[in-house]
Amino acid sequence: MSQEPTIVSKEDLENRDAKWVSLKKLNWKDHTGKERVWEVAERRTRGSSGLDAVAILAVIRSKTNAFPASTVILEQYRPPMDKFIIEMPAGLVDANETPEQAALRELHEETGYKSDKVLESSSILASDPGMTTANMKLVTVDVLLEDKLEYPDQKLDEGEAIVKRVVELKSLYNELKEYEKKGFMIDARLNHFATGLEMAERLKGSL
Amino acid sequence: MSQEPTIVSKEDLENRDAKWVSLKKLNWKDHTGKERVWEVAERRTRGSSGLDAVAILAVIRSKTNAFPASTVILEQYRPPMDKFIIEMPAGLVDANETPEQAALRELHEETGYKSDKVLESSSILASDPGMTTANMKLVTVDVLLEDKLEYPDQKLDEGEAIVKRVVELKSLYNELKEYEKKGFMIDARLNHFATGLEMAERLKGSL
Repeated sequence: MSQEPTIVSKEDLENRDAKWVSLKKLNWKDHTGKERVWEVAERRTRGSSGLDAVAILAVIRSKTNAFPASTVILEQYRPPMDKFIIEMPAGLVDANETPEQAALRELHEETGYKSDKVLESSSILASDPGMTTANMKLVTVDVLLEDKLEYPDQKLDEGEAIVKRVVELKSLYNELKEYEKKGFMIDARLNHFATGLEMAERLKGSL
Repeated sequence: MSQEPTIVSKEDLENRDAKWVSLKKLNWKDHTGKERVWEVAERRTRGSSGLDAVAILAVIRSKTNAFPASTVILEQYRPPMDKFIIEMPAGLVDANETPEQAALRELHEETGYKSDKVLESSSILASDPGMTTANMKLVTVDVLLEDKLEYPDQKLDEGEAIVKRVVELKSLYNELKEYEKKGFMIDARLNHFATGLEMAERLKGSL
């Protein structure tokens, strides 16, 4: 039985009761030597890799060029925003895996697509460096299919409700606009990727 | 006298002592009706606009096409990461301004560039929806110059240390790689925008 997820209540959380995040005060010296403070949230789950999370940019292509290069994005309820967010597949990095292994595992679980070819793995990126210590890598993977677009089943954990959607890269920007009209919210990183694709197209000739 | 900024110490911060952020526990019901909890950080500074921050994508162009379309990015020490981060210009939205006014003000302060033409203002985006309630808009503005690239002075507040850098859009992806080699960290949103630009170029023909 499926129903609309909802926020029941919200309360202050103190560090001693928090399992996933904590609030910290940084005492720091600026470039003039002046002492300052900065308030920041951090994840408690970061392992020895030093990395919190990976996002996966899947490039879904046909060996015979039978369909346009595409990617897979997710629709997922996110309690912090109390909305369904459109995002790239992503997840936290487990203690015993490399970022690239985490990316291929999450892609398989959340979308059903399998890949064994990492095209590129970004450096460690700052997720929101004014407010949190959270960091991430963007892992770009090749999903090379024969001449037909396939839609494999997801391998979701019990209780996970994630809808996947395959979108042609050249339409991604406009598809996100359609999602907004329907009341979905877009993840900033996915939005910025789509904006880059779109701007390359619009500025053709003056680049 | 300029010196390397440093973290002096880090301590737990409780909600009652925090001015800028707070830690919350969300009690929510999932799609099966099951009660769950989610831990989240939120900004205390959000005004009636409902928006925390804006980032600015400045498209710097020549009226006569005398130089390639460019943008301006910043190098800035961020205590949460204890590193110099490469970012788009950005800032919090003041209580009395629209997102677009905030974007043009921050662009002028942080880079010296003036614009009165907003090309596009995104919907409200989720900055890191698994961990925080933070949201933002990406405002794309036109900086139309005559035939020469100009480098106006910044209008920084006392104590601000932000280095600006003008980069051709077609080189942005590679310039970020150069920054990484020098020990800078890249903001995820800027990285994703540059990845979109680069992917459009690399996939030409299969899009």
